[in-house]
Amino acid sequence: MQHNIERALAEISFDRDGLVPAVAQQYDTGEILMMAWMNRAAVRATLNEGRVCYWSRSRAQLWRKGETSGQVQLLRELRLDCDGDTVLLLVDQHGVACHTGRRNCFFRAWRDGGWDVIAEPQIDPTILYPEGGD
Amino acid sequence: MQHNIERALAEISFDRDGLVPAVAQQYDTGEILMMAWMNRAAVRATLNEGRVCYWSRSRAQLWRKGETSGQVQLLRELRLDCDGDTVLLLVDQHGVACHTGRRNCFFRAWRDGGWDVIAEPQIDPTILYPEGGD
Repeated sequence: MQHNIERALAEISFDRDGLVPAVAQQYDTGEILMMAWMNRAAVRATLNEGRVCYWSRSRAQLWRKGETSGQVQLLRELRLDCDGDTVLLLVDQHGVACHTGRRNCFFRAWRDGGWDVIAEPQIDPTILYPEGGD
Repeated sequence: MQHNIERALAEISFDRDGLVPAVAQQYDTGEILMMAWMNRAAVRATLNEGRVCYWSRSRAQLWRKGETSGQVQLLRELRLDCDGDTVLLLVDQHGVACHTGRRNCFFRAWRDGGWDVIAEPQIDPTILYPEGGD
Protein backbone atom coordinates (compact mmCIF):
# COMPACT_ATOMS: atom_id res chain seq x y z
CA MET A 1 0.00 0.00 0.00
CA GLN A 2 2.62 2.52 1.11
CA HIS A 3 4.92 1.40 -1.64
CA ASN A 4 2.16 1.93 -4.18
CA ILE A 5 1.34 5.35 -2.84
CA GLU A 6 4.95 6.40 -3.28
CA ARG A 7 4.56 5.41 -6.93
CA ALA A 8 1.48 7.61 -7.16
CA LEU A 9 3.41 10.51 -5.68
CA ALA A 10 6.25 10.01 -8.14
CA GLU A 11 3.98 11.04 -11.02
CA ILE A 12 2.74 14.23 -9.37
CA SER A 13 4.62 17.46 -10.03
CA PHE A 14 4.60 19.50 -6.87
CA ASP A 15 5.41 23.20 -7.19
CA ARG A 16 8.28 25.10 -5.56
CA ASP A 17 6.29 25.15 -2.31
CA GLY A 18 5.75 21.40 -2.48
CA LEU A 19 2.07 21.83 -3.36
CA VAL A 20 -0.28 20.75 -6.11
CA PRO A 21 -3.71 22.28 -6.79
CA ALA A 22 -6.57 19.86 -6.23
CA VAL A 23 -10.06 20.32 -7.67
CA ALA A 24 -12.87 18.54 -5.85
CA GLN A 25 -15.84 17.43 -7.92
CA GLN A 26 -18.96 15.64 -6.69
CA TYR A 27 -18.55 12.27 -8.36
CA ASP A 28 -22.13 11.73 -9.52
CA THR A 29 -23.46 15.19 -10.34
CA GLY A 30 -20.27 16.76 -11.74
CA GLU A 31 -20.65 19.79 -9.47
CA ILE A 32 -17.32 21.49 -8.82
CA LEU A 33 -17.16 21.89 -5.08
CA MET A 34 -13.89 23.67 -4.32
CA MET A 35 -10.22 24.02 -5.14
CA ALA A 36 -7.54 23.62 -2.50
CA TRP A 37 -3.94 22.45 -2.21
CA MET A 38 -2.22 19.21 -1.33
CA ASN A 39 1.35 18.41 -0.38
CA ARG A 40 2.86 14.92 -0.39
CA ALA A 41 1.59 14.16 3.09
CA ALA A 42 -1.94 15.23 2.13
CA VAL A 43 -1.95 12.94 -0.90
CA ARG A 44 -0.65 10.08 1.24
CA ALA A 45 -3.32 10.67 3.90
CA THR A 46 -6.06 10.93 1.28
CA LEU A 47 -5.13 7.67 -0.42
CA ASN A 48 -4.55 5.86 2.87
CA GLU A 49 -7.72 7.04 4.58
CA GLY A 50 -10.14 7.29 1.66
CA ARG A 51 -11.25 10.76 2.68
CA VAL A 52 -9.79 13.98 1.42
CA CYS A 53 -6.99 15.69 3.26
CA TYR A 54 -5.61 19.00 1.99
CA TRP A 55 -2.75 21.21 3.07
CA SER A 56 -3.98 24.43 4.62
CA ARG A 57 -1.70 27.20 3.43
CA SER A 58 -3.10 29.68 5.94
CA ARG A 59 -2.67 27.37 8.92
CA ALA A 60 0.38 25.57 7.50
CA GLN A 61 -0.89 22.17 8.53
CA LEU A 62 -2.71 19.14 7.18
CA TRP A 63 -6.40 19.80 6.84
CA ARG A 64 -8.67 16.79 6.92
CA LYS A 65 -11.67 18.28 5.24
CA GLY A 66 -14.58 18.21 7.65
CA GLU A 67 -12.57 17.45 10.77
CA THR A 68 -14.19 20.43 12.50
CA SER A 69 -17.46 20.70 10.59
CA GLY A 70 -18.23 17.06 9.86
CA GLN A 71 -18.58 17.99 6.16
CA VAL A 72 -16.20 15.31 4.98
CA GLN A 73 -15.29 14.39 1.42
CA LEU A 74 -15.11 10.66 0.83
CA LEU A 75 -12.73 9.86 -1.99
CA ARG A 76 -14.17 8.00 -4.96
CA GLU A 77 -11.23 8.45 -7.32
CA LEU A 78 -8.08 10.50 -7.64
CA ARG A 79 -7.10 11.61 -11.15
CA LEU A 80 -4.08 13.41 -12.53
CA ASP A 81 -3.80 15.68 -15.52
CA CYS A 82 -1.52 15.40 -18.53
CA ASP A 83 1.27 17.49 -17.02
CA GLY A 84 0.94 15.87 -13.62
CA ASP A 85 0.57 19.25 -11.97
CA THR A 86 -3.14 19.26 -11.08
CA VAL A 87 -5.15 16.66 -9.20
CA LEU A 88 -8.85 16.00 -9.69
CA LEU A 89 -10.64 14.49 -6.71
CA LEU A 90 -13.92 12.75 -7.39
CA VAL A 91 -15.61 12.81 -4.02
CA ASP A 92 -18.84 12.23 -2.21
CA GLN A 93 -19.35 15.44 -0.29
CA HIS A 94 -21.22 15.10 2.96
CA GLY A 95 -23.19 18.26 3.56
CA VAL A 96 -21.59 21.40 2.19
CA ALA A 97 -18.09 22.06 0.86
CA CYS A 98 -17.87 25.82 1.44
CA HIS A 99 -17.02 27.44 4.75
CA THR A 100 -19.84 29.93 4.08
CA GLY A 101 -22.33 27.08 4.40
CA ARG A 102 -22.91 26.84 0.66
CA ARG A 103 -22.77 23.56 -1.19
CA ASN A 104 -19.83 24.76 -3.32
CA CYS A 105 -17.39 27.65 -3.21
CA PHE A 106 -18.07 29.05 -6.69
CA PHE A 107 -21.19 31.02 -5.84
CA ARG A 108 -20.22 34.31 -7.49
CA ALA A 109 -20.98 34.66 -11.20
CA TRP A 110 -19.92 37.55 -13.40
CA ARG A 111 -23.17 38.63 -15.09
CA ASP A 112 -24.08 41.91 -16.75
CA GLY A 113 -21.01 43.69 -15.47
CA GLY A 114 -21.25 42.67 -11.83
CA TRP A 115 -20.73 39.76 -9.44
CA ASP A 116 -24.02 38.00 -8.72
CA VAL A 117 -24.36 35.70 -5.73
CA ILE A 118 -26.04 32.65 -7.27
CA ALA A 119 -26.33 30.32 -4.26
CA GLU A 120 -27.39 30.78 -0.68
CA PRO A 121 -26.01 29.05 2.42
CA GLN A 122 -27.68 25.76 3.23
CA ILE A 123 -26.49 25.86 6.82
CA ASP A 124 -25.37 28.60 9.18
CA PRO A 125 -21.55 28.59 9.19
CA THR A 126 -21.51 29.40 12.89
CA ILE A 127 -23.12 26.00 13.41
CA LEU A 128 -20.47 24.35 11.25
CA TYR A 129 -17.59 26.11 12.94
CA PRO A 130 -18.48 27.16 16.47
CA GLU A 131 -14.85 28.10 16.97
CA GLY A 132 -14.20 29.27 13.41
CA GLY A 133 -12.24 27.75 10.52
CA ASP A 134 -12.30 24.39 8.75
CA MET B 1 -17.24 47.61 -20.39
CA GLN B 2 -13.61 48.20 -19.44
CA HIS B 3 -14.68 49.94 -16.28
CA ASN B 4 -16.81 46.95 -15.34
CA ILE B 5 -14.01 44.51 -16.04
CA GLU B 6 -11.74 46.40 -13.70
CA ARG B 7 -14.42 45.87 -11.03
CA ALA B 8 -14.37 42.17 -11.81
CA LEU B 9 -10.59 42.10 -11.41
CA ALA B 10 -10.78 43.93 -8.10
CA GLU B 11 -12.47 40.91 -6.51
CA ILE B 12 -9.92 38.39 -7.74
CA SER B 13 -6.96 37.59 -5.49
CA PHE B 14 -3.93 37.03 -7.69
CA ASP B 15 -0.98 35.24 -6.13
CA ARG B 16 2.57 36.56 -5.68
CA ASP B 17 3.21 35.85 -9.37
CA GLY B 18 0.10 37.77 -10.39
CA LEU B 19 -1.73 34.56 -11.32
CA VAL B 20 -4.95 32.84 -10.36
CA PRO B 21 -5.78 29.18 -11.07
CA ALA B 22 -8.65 28.71 -13.50
CA VAL B 23 -10.65 25.50 -13.85
CA ALA B 24 -12.43 24.99 -17.16
CA GLN B 25 -15.65 22.98 -17.10
CA GLN B 26 -17.85 22.08 -20.05
CA TYR B 27 -20.95 24.13 -19.26
CA ASP B 28 -23.61 21.54 -20.13
CA THR B 29 -22.07 18.17 -19.23
CA GLY B 30 -20.07 19.21 -16.15
CA GLU B 31 -16.91 17.58 -17.52
CA ILE B 32 -13.77 19.12 -16.06
CA LEU B 33 -11.60 19.88 -19.05
CA MET B 34 -8.38 21.36 -17.70
CA MET B 35 -6.77 23.66 -15.17
CA ALA B 36 -4.54 26.53 -16.21
CA TRP B 37 -3.56 29.99 -15.01
CA MET B 38 -4.73 33.53 -15.70
CA ASN B 39 -3.18 36.88 -14.99
CA ARG B 40 -5.06 40.19 -15.10
CA ALA B 41 -4.56 40.58 -18.83
CA ALA B 42 -5.88 37.07 -19.45
CA VAL B 43 -9.04 37.74 -17.45
CA ARG B 44 -9.52 41.03 -19.32
CA ALA B 45 -9.09 39.34 -22.70
CA THR B 46 -11.43 36.50 -21.75
CA LEU B 47 -14.21 38.83 -20.65
CA ASN B 48 -13.71 41.18 -23.57
CA GLU B 49 -13.51 38.52 -26.25
CA GLY B 50 -15.89 35.87 -24.88
CA ARG B 51 -13.34 33.12 -25.43
CA VAL B 52 -10.88 31.86 -22.91
CA CYS B 53 -7.40 33.31 -22.72
CA TYR B 54 -4.91 31.93 -20.19
CA TRP B 55 -1.40 32.91 -19.18
CA SER B 56 1.15 30.36 -20.33
CA ARG B 57 3.72 30.03 -17.57
CA SER B 58 6.09 28.02 -19.75
CA ARG B 59 6.01 30.52 -22.61
CA ALA B 60 5.44 33.58 -20.38
CA GLN B 61 2.81 35.01 -22.70
CA LEU B 62 -0.94 35.24 -23.15
CA TRP B 63 -2.36 32.01 -24.48
CA ARG B 64 -5.61 32.27 -26.34
CA LYS B 65 -6.75 28.69 -26.00
CA GLY B 66 -7.05 27.17 -29.47
CA GLU B 67 -5.15 29.88 -31.32
CA THR B 68 -2.90 27.23 -32.84
CA SER B 69 -5.14 24.18 -32.73
CA GLY B 70 -8.55 25.72 -33.35
CA GLN B 71 -9.79 23.98 -30.19
CA VAL B 72 -11.21 27.15 -28.66
CA GLN B 73 -13.16 27.55 -25.45
CA LEU B 74 -16.13 29.87 -25.76
CA LEU B 75 -16.93 31.45 -22.43
CA ARG B 76 -20.41 30.86 -21.05
CA GLU B 77 -19.82 32.17 -17.56
CA LEU B 78 -16.97 33.14 -15.27
CA ARG B 79 -17.36 32.32 -11.57
CA LEU B 80 -15.26 33.09 -8.53
CA ASP B 81 -14.88 31.15 -5.31
CA CYS B 82 -15.46 32.29 -1.74
CA ASP B 83 -11.87 33.41 -1.19
CA GLY B 84 -11.59 35.02 -4.62
CA ASP B 85 -8.47 33.01 -5.38
CA THR B 86 -9.80 30.47 -7.89
CA VAL B 87 -11.76 31.07 -11.09
CA LEU B 88 -14.24 28.63 -12.60
CA LEU B 89 -14.78 28.96 -16.34
CA LEU B 90 -17.95 27.47 -17.74
CA VAL B 91 -17.10 26.99 -21.38
CA ASP B 92 -18.17 25.41 -24.60
CA GLN B 93 -15.11 23.46 -25.70
CA HIS B 94 -14.70 23.08 -29.42
CA GLY B 95 -13.01 19.77 -30.10
CA VAL B 96 -10.58 18.66 -27.42
CA ALA B 97 -9.08 20.51 -24.47
CA CYS B 98 -5.93 18.47 -23.94
CA HIS B 99 -2.72 18.87 -25.94
CA THR B 100 -2.55 15.05 -26.12
CA GLY B 101 -5.67 15.07 -28.28
CA ARG B 102 -7.92 13.90 -25.46
CA ARG B 103 -11.16 15.63 -24.61
CA ASN B 104 -9.92 16.54 -21.12
CA CYS B 105 -6.58 16.54 -19.35
CA PHE B 106 -7.52 14.31 -16.39
CA PHE B 107 -7.12 10.98 -18.12
CA ARG B 108 -5.01 9.24 -15.48
CA ALA B 109 -6.90 7.57 -12.63
CA TRP B 110 -5.32 6.01 -9.58
CA ARG B 111 -6.86 2.53 -9.45
CA ASP B 112 -5.66 -0.61 -7.68
CA GLY B 113 -2.28 0.85 -6.88
CA GLY B 114 -1.40 2.17 -10.32
CA TRP B 115 -2.17 4.97 -12.77
CA ASP B 116 -4.70 3.83 -15.37
CA VAL B 117 -5.13 5.74 -18.62
CA ILE B 118 -8.91 6.04 -18.87
CA ALA B 119 -9.32 8.01 -22.09
CA GLU B 120 -7.78 7.79 -25.52
CA PRO B 121 -6.90 10.65 -27.89
CA GLN B 122 -9.75 11.68 -30.17
CA ILE B 123 -7.39 13.35 -32.59
CA ASP B 124 -3.69 13.03 -33.39
CA PRO B 125 -1.90 15.87 -31.58
CA THR B 126 0.50 16.28 -34.48
CA ILE B 127 -2.53 17.35 -36.52
CA LEU B 128 -3.55 19.83 -33.85
CA TYR B 129 -0.06 21.26 -33.48
CA PRO B 130 2.00 20.77 -36.59
CA GLU B 131 4.65 23.00 -35.05
CA GLY B 132 4.11 21.91 -31.45
CA GLY B 133 2.52 23.62 -28.45
CA ASP B 134 -0.88 25.27 -28.00
